[in-house]
Amino acid sequence: MNELLSWWGKAVGQSYALKLLDIHLRGASQVMFQNNVLTGLLFILGIFWGTAAAENPGVAIGAIVGLVIATLTAIILGSDDASLEQGLFGFNGILVGLAVPTFLVMGPATWFLLVIGAAFSTVAMLAISQVTKLWGVPALTFPFVLTTWFLVLAAYSFGHLSIGSMGPPALPSPLARSDLGIDLSVGELLGACIRSISQVFLINNFGAGIIFIVALLVNSRWAAVFAVAGSVVSVIMGLVLGANPSSMSAGLYGFSPVLTAIALGCVFFEPSWRVALFALLGTIVSVIIQGALDAAIAPVGIPTFTAAFVFVTWLFLLPKLNLKPHGHGLVSDGIMTGK
Amino acid sequence: MNELLSWWGKAVGQSYALKLLDIHLRGASQVMFQNNVLTGLLFILGIFWGTAAAENPGVAIGAIVGLVIATLTAIILGSDDASLEQGLFGFNGILVGLAVPTFLVMGPATWFLLVIGAAFSTVAMLAISQVTKLWGVPALTFPFVLTTWFLVLAAYSFGHLSIGSMGPPALPSPLARSDLGIDLSVGELLGACIRSISQVFLINNFGAGIIFIVALLVNSRWAAVFAVAGSVVSVIMGLVLGANPSSMSAGLYGFSPVLTAIALGCVFFEPSWRVALFALLGTIVSVIIQGALDAAIAPVGIPTFTAAFVFVTWLFLLPKLNLKPHGHGLVSDGIMTGK
Amino acid sequence: MNELLSWWGKAVGQSYALKLLDIHLRGASQVMFQNNVLTGLLFILGIFWGTAAAENPGVAIGAIVGLVIATLTAIILGSDDASLEQGLFGFNGILVGLAVPTFLVMGPATWFLLVIGAAFSTVAMLAISQVTKLWGVPALTFPFVLTTWFLVLAAYSFGHLSIGSMGPPALPSPLARSDLGIDLSVGELLGACIRSISQVFLINNFGAGIIFIVALLVNSRWAAVFAVAGSVVSVIMGLVLGANPSSMSAGLYGFSPVLTAIALGCVFFEPSWRVALFALLGTIVSVIIQGALDAAIAPVGIPTFTAAFVFVTWLFLLPKLNLKPHGHGLVSDGIMTGK
Repeated sequence: MNELLSWWGKAVGQSYALKLLDIHLRGASQVMFQNNVLTGLLFILGIFWGTAAAENPGVAIGAIVGLVIATLTAIILGSDDASLEQGLFGFNGILVGLAVPTFLVMGPATWFLLVIGAAFSTVAMLAISQVTKLWGVPALTFPFVLTTWFLVLAAYSFGHLSIGSMGPPALPSPLARSDLGIDLSVGELLGACIRSISQVFLINNFGAGIIFIVALLVNSRWAAVFAVAGSVVSVIMGLVLGANPSSMSAGLYGFSPVLTAIALGCVFFEPSWRVALFALLGTIVSVIIQGALDAAIAPVGIPTFTAAFVFVTWLFLLPKLNLKPHGHGLVSDGIMTGK
Repeated sequence: MNELLSWWGKAVGQSYALKLLDIHLRGASQVMFQNNVLTGLLFILGIFWGTAAAENPGVAIGAIVGLVIATLTAIILGSDDASLEQGLFGFNGILVGLAVPTFLVMGPATWFLLVIGAAFSTVAMLAISQVTKLWGVPALTFPFVLTTWFLVLAAYSFGHLSIGSMGPPALPSPLARSDLGIDLSVGELLGACIRSISQVFLINNFGAGIIFIVALLVNSRWAAVFAVAGSVVSVIMGLVLGANPSSMSAGLYGFSPVLTAIALGCVFFEPSWRVALFALLGTIVSVIIQGALDAAIAPVGIPTFTAAFVFVTWLFLLPKLNLKPHGHGLVSDGIMTGK
Repeated sequence: MNELLSWWGKAVGQSYALKLLDIHLRGASQVMFQNNVLTGLLFILGIFWGTAAAENPGVAIGAIVGLVIATLTAIILGSDDASLEQGLFGFNGILVGLAVPTFLVMGPATWFLLVIGAAFSTVAMLAISQVTKLWGVPALTFPFVLTTWFLVLAAYSFGHLSIGSMGPPALPSPLARSDLGIDLSVGELLGACIRSISQVFLINNFGAGIIFIVALLVNSRWAAVFAVAGSVVSVIMGLVLGANPSSMSAGLYGFSPVLTAIALGCVFFEPSWRVALFALLGTIVSVIIQGALDAAIAPVGIPTFTAAFVFVTWLFLLPKLNLKPHGHGLVSDGIMTGK
C-alpha cells in the first residue's frame, strides 16, 4: 500500500493531469475528513455501486460533475494551493452533485442548476471559512448544506425544476403510535448501522456502506472505528427515543452522528478516553438534533442534509478552556458611555 | 443581611459541599443576572411556590436536576473557575430543567432528554460565549433557548417523547377581533405585570412573581425597579398594539421585555436617564419582536422562550461609538484583486 | 452639474438645516450604494412618481418619515460623523418606511410601529455593522430586512395592526404548469427589467424605474450599467428556470439581482472582466436564492425583502485570497487538551 502511494506521489509530480486527478480524489475523501487518494477512489466506487443498485446513474454522474466544477472553480479563483491539494475544495461539490439528482428530477434546467450550485459551493466554502476561522473551527459541510438548501428550495418556485423524492411540505405532527409498532430484527438493526454510513453520501445501500468502511480503514483505523461506533450509538438512541423504524432502517438517523463521531473522536481531537466520552455526548446530541431539525424543516419540504452534524460539531469544537464567558457585568464600551 | 452573607462566605471557604451549594444558588440567581446566594435561594423558593400551586412538581424537580447537571458538566469540562463561582454555568441549565417538564409529558425517555439537554446547555454556553466574546457581548440565555428548541422539537420526531402543553403546529393567522373583545380590569393588568416577572422562570403565578421581585430587591434595587418598569411597559405596549388579552394576562408578552429592561437598564450599562430611554426603546422593541417570533415559530409548534430578549439585547449592546459601519466602497481585499 | 454640486457643497457648509437635508438625501442615495445628493433627490422623486401612480401616498410619506427618524436616531446616539455624512444611517430607515405602508394598512398603531421600527433600524445598523466589520464586509440592507421582518410578522400577533397586501401564510407548493402558460412579449420582458430596478424601492412602476436609472447615471455610469445588466440577467434566468410570469413581470425576481450586480460589479470591487464574470455568477445565484427564499418564507406569510441580495453579496465578498480554510486536522486548542 505504502509503495503504491509513493509511486503515485511520484507520478503526480510529473503530470498536471494526474495532479488534477489526485486533487479530485482527495476532494472525495474529505467528505469523511480523510486526505488519501485511495480512500477517495473507494468512496467513488461505493457511490457507483450504490447508484447502480438503485438504477439511478444520474446521481453518480452528478457527483463527478459536482466534484470537477467545484474544484475547477477553486483553481480559477486562485484559492490557497495547500488547501486545494488536500481536497478541501472538492467535498462540498461532490455532495451538491449527489444531492441534486437524488431529490430533483434531472433535465436541462436541473443540470444547469447543479453546475451553478457546484461552482457556488466553492464561493460559499471560501466565505464561510472566513467566518468560522474567526471562531477557530472549520467550515465542515455547511457550504454543501447551505448551497443545496437553496437549490432544492428553488425547485418549489421555478417551473422548469421538477421535484422528485422530497416533501411535500407539511406541518410537523407527533410520530403516530402505529409507526412505532414495527420491531426491527437484529439483522435489520445491523443493516441500519451500515446504511447510516452509506447515507453520508446520501446512498441507501448496505454494500456501499461496507465499501465506505473499507475506504476509511485504508487511511485511518480510528476513523473506521468511530464511524462504526457513531452508527451503533445512533441506532441505540433511535430505539431509546422511539425513532421511526423505517427511517432508522434506511440510515436516516445515523449519517450525522457518524460524521460527528469521526470528527470529534479522531479528526479534530486526538483519540483518548476523555475525547471518546465527549464524542459520545456529541453523538447522542446529534441524534436528538436530527429529530429536531426534521420537524423544524417539515413545513418547507426539504431534507436537513448534514446540518445536525455541522451544528453539533461546531458547538462541541468551539469551547476553549482558557476563554471564559462574558460575565453579567458592564460591557466594556457602548453608545451609552461615549468611551 | 450583610452579616449573614459574610458568615456564609466564611462557611463556603471551609467546605466543598457548601461551596458547591453556593455555586448552584448563584447559578439560579444569574437567570436575572444577579450574583447572590440569597437571591438564588428565593428564586428557587418562588419556583417551588409556583409549581406547588400548579400541582406540577416535575417542573421544580426538573429545575434542580437541570441546575445540578449543567453545573457539574462545567466542572468536569474544567471551565473557568471565576465564571463558575459567579454561577454563569447554572442559569441555562435551570431554565432547560424548567422548560422540558412544562412542555413535555415526563417519562423515562423525557428525563433522559432533560439530563442530556442540561449537560449540552453547558457545552452550548461555552461555544456560544466563544462567538459572542468576539462581538464583546455575553451569551445571555441563548444557550438555553437553542438547547430547548432542539429538545422540544425532537418530541415531534420521537415516539417515546410525548408532547404536553405546546403546539399544535399551525400557520400564523391574524388575531381575530373576537379575541380582542375582552377588556382587562386594572387588577388583571396589575396581575399581568407580576406574572410577566414570574414567567421569566416559565411560571404563571402571582405569588411567585412577588417572591422574584423580593429576590431582586435583596441584591439590587435597580434590578427590581427595571423589572417592574419592564413589565409595566410590556402591558402598556400590549394594549397599544392590541395583544391577545389572555396571553397578556398570563404574562406571556412580558417576560422578555422584563429581562431586556433589567439587562439594558442596570446590568450592562450604568443606570442614567440616557440609559433609561435607550432601555425603554429596547423594551418596546422586545414586545414587538415577541409578537413577531410568536407568528414566525407557529408553523413548528414550539414556544419562543426568551429569544426576543436575547436578540434585542444583543442588538442594543453591540453598537459602539468608536466603531463606524463599513462604508459602501471597495472592500480592503478580495479574490478579485489578488492582494 | 459639477458647478451645481460645488455650489451646494458651499451652501451646506454654511447652514445646519441644509447640512441635515444633505445627509438625508445622501441617505436616500445609499439605497443603491451612491453618495450623491442629486441621486438621492431623484430617488425620492421616483418614489413620489410611483406612489402617485399607485394612488398610495402613505408609502411616500412613510419613506420620508423613516428616513428622518433613522437619521435623527443616529445623530442622537452620537454615531460616527463621517458615516453619517455619507448617508449610511438613512438607507435602512427609508426602506423600512417604504415597506410598512406597502404591506400593512396604516392607522395610529401602524404609524407608531413605523416610527419605532425606523429608530430601531439605526440601532440594528450599528449592531450588525459591528459583527460584519469582523468579517470585513458591510452590513448592506440587512438592518432593513431584519427590522421589517419583525414589524410585518408582528402584524399577525397584534389586533391593532392590520395586514394589507402580503400573505396569507401557506405551505410552499410547486409552481403549477398553468402559471407558466403565459408567454411574455418582448415589451413585457423589457418592462420586467425596468420594474426590477423600481422594485429596489418596493415600487412597481416603469416610469419610476427610468427615473432611478437616470439617478444612477448622475453619479456613476458603471452603477447604471450594472443595474440594467443585473435586471436583464434576472429576466433571462427567470425564463431559463421557469419563474412565475406575473411575478417576473412585476420585477419581483429582479430587485435583489440588480443590487447584487451593482454591489459586486462596481461598488465593492473595481470593474474589470474578471469582476464582471464573478458578478454574473453572483447575479445568477441571486435569482436562484430569490426563488428559494420565497418558498422558505411562504409558511409565515411575509415578503423576503432584499434578503437574497444580502446573503449572496456577503458570500461573494467574504472570500479572501490570502486566507485558506481551516483544514480537517486538529483544532489548535480545546477543552480536551487543557492547553
